[in-house]
Amino acid sequence: MKIFPDERIDDLEFNNLKIIQNKNFFCFGIDSVLISNFCTKNKSASNAVDIGSGSGIISILIASKTKTKHIYGIEIQNEVAEMSKRSIELNHLEDKIEILNIDLKDATKYINPNSIDCVVTNPPYMKNGTGAKNENKQKIIARHEVETTLSEILNISYKLLKDRGEFFMIHRVDRLVDILSEMRAQRLEPKEIQFVYPYVNKSPNLVMLRAVKNGGRELKVLDPLVVYKEDGNYTDEILKIYGKK
Amino acid sequence: MKIFPDERIDDLEFNNLKIIQNKNFFCFGIDSVLISNFCTKNKSASNAVDIGSGSGIISILIASKTKTKHIYGIEIQNEVAEMSKRSIELNHLEDKIEILNIDLKDATKYINPNSIDCVVTNPPYMKNGTGAKNENKQKIIARHEVETTLSEILNISYKLLKDRGEFFMIHRVDRLVDILSEMRAQRLEPKEIQFVYPYVNKSPNLVMLRAVKNGGRELKVLDPLVVYKEDGNYTDEILKIYGKK
Repeated sequence: MKIFPDERIDDLEFNNLKIIQNKNFFCFGIDSVLISNFCTKNKSASNAVDIGSGSGIISILIASKTKTKHIYGIEIQNEVAEMSKRSIELNHLEDKIEILNIDLKDATKYINPNSIDCVVTNPPYMKNGTGAKNENKQKIIARHEVETTLSEILNISYKLLKDRGEFFMIHRVDRLVDILSEMRAQRLEPKEIQFVYPYVNKSPNLVMLRAVKNGGRELKVLDPLVVYKEDGNYTDEILKIYGKK
Repeated sequence: MKIFPDERIDDLEFNNLKIIQNKNFFCFGIDSVLISNFCTKNKSASNAVDIGSGSGIISILIASKTKTKHIYGIEIQNEVAEMSKRSIELNHLEDKIEILNIDLKDATKYINPNSIDCVVTNPPYMKNGTGAKNENKQKIIARHEVETTLSEILNISYKLLKDRGEFFMIHRVDRLVDILSEMRAQRLEPKEIQFVYPYVNKSPNLVMLRAVKNGGRELKVLDPLVVYKEDGNYTDEILKIYGKK
């Protein structure tokens, strides 16, 4: 396995999984781990698409945690997509995960429309032109809506999903109105949301959503997911998601 | 003070307030108390409108808790509006609260457009034609969107409010997508939401929202409001809202 300068192999300490990361690229955070766990609510998916697959973390976790037979990871950045392919080889998951180094706009040229059970994404959180920009190109693309937007992600997801297929996303709470109104407008009807609270009694900063293509209108808000105990250690629920409990 | 058969005088056990209720009408619940407290976030309102004022509970609590000089209660049901006027007299709040026994559609004939600092509402939660209908007319109108709808409430509120005026509402969580997408469409931009959880670690059933007319797009989700402790008694936070702590 080739490992380039600035790269390292991280041990996920879960199912013996490993992942290559580059300190100059966007390195995955707890949000990717949380949405990977959340989307395994869909137990029966035979295929899935991971939009903006980056390091490959979500695809690798889904491949390891579920019986999903084929997972497409869509990643526009060539060097990031290439690195994730090596991580997939490292974990011997080449027969389950296929990285498409393409622009999301072209997804339906590579994946049949109306063929997918489950789309999952940890998208760029920030609008283009907002937030700190003292970052390199790779990090800006991962964090900001430069190459794609929420609206485009929902539009393409709708096209890829089967009728009643499921869409899972983690995003920032401050964009919840954007998210819910865009989802409804694009007929990915929000069915469940779960807020992620850094500490109990604090405001949530992240939100996870499950939507259903052409689903009926009824939303359930799940119980809060709290990340840290007062002493700064992970809560039992988070440890369980990390496979430590 | 005239009290009719089927009526009773309830002591709010708060600021010596009393309220007349009729067992055949819709009797207010904790949701009215919660939204009355939530809307006092707007400390500087010199006037307010309570849409669907019913027994008068929200108007009476605002009049008692804030320095708001004039509160309009809009109530379409003649016999309910009449009863609430007697409650207002009972509390000597006639110079602060004016009940308008009108159809919400006609509100701008009685209240100047663009003149109101704060609109508050505990609206009918259920769509017309849903839920149990083995109720009398008064209760159906209070609970179901028979005489008005979420969309109409937002539309009239927008007209009544000053630019940057505030809109406060409590509603059921299962309609959150309706609420947020309608609010944005009608330019009452959601700024803060707080979920009301019956118990900690349970799903929330109610949600309180603060929106701003023509406000910027950024939502904050507040810390959870939990109603009951595990032993079934009110939490300290609820006791405080009820003035017991």
